[in-house]
Amino acid sequence: MEWGAQMKQVIVVNTALQMSCGKLAAQVAHASVGALLVAERIAVERWLSEGMPKIVLEAADSAELLTLYEQARAKLLLAQIIQDAGKTVLEPGTITCLGMGPASVDSIDAVTGKLRLLR
Amino acid sequence: MEWGAQMKQVIVVNTALQMSCGKLAAQVAHASVGALLVAERIAVERWLSEGMPKIVLEAADSAELLTLYEQARAKLLLAQIIQDAGKTVLEPGTITCLGMGPASVDSIDAVTGKLRLLR
Repeated sequence: MEWGAQMKQVIVVNTALQMSCGKLAAQVAHASVGALLVAERIAVERWLSEGMPKIVLEAADSAELLTLYEQARAKLLLAQIIQDAGKTVLEPGTITCLGMGPASVDSIDAVTGKLRLLR
Repeated sequence: MEWGAQMKQVIVVNTALQMSCGKLAAQVAHASVGALLVAERIAVERWLSEGMPKIVLEAADSAELLTLYEQARAKLLLAQIIQDAGKTVLEPGTITCLGMGPASVDSIDAVTGKLRLLR
């Protein structure tokens, strides 16, 4: 991580599941906390001091999320796949989101820079 | 906190703002992480070991969120009001969410037990 780099966290959502807003928000929060727990401590501290910027992006399906996860890991970018416990509307193990970072904006954009913002 | 209590975290959303799903999800994630940072460490550890249960609930407006916050504080329940930085669609300082806990299910339900699940 370069000195002085700006930090962010990105959460990518599996839009194929067509989750309700409330379900989706809970899954995004799982991914945010999950990725936080595996992130480098120095990255987390810097991100907190910068106001915890978070961006929520779209992926078409779980296959795209897995590809993004592999790309992140290949760049040594810490990320976390979120699978639903399946207690309500989804099947157990359904991949709902990918949380990535906090890490430098440049390193995250190298993986997710072409994805659309979730509206 | 009683021994053996089950833990949860609740995030209550200001539905008057009619945020898009993506905007709302980012705010819920802010609230989840924000409340986590102010929660008791022992509560956080127990909650993590229980799979981080999170519930997303509805409030009518920011006044209701502030009332819930005061009720939580009066019961010594740690909570966090989330205000938007106002860089995109909302006015700076708009109250978007309230994050509460992780704390015991009983203590959280004493404040938020009558609220509806956000769909």
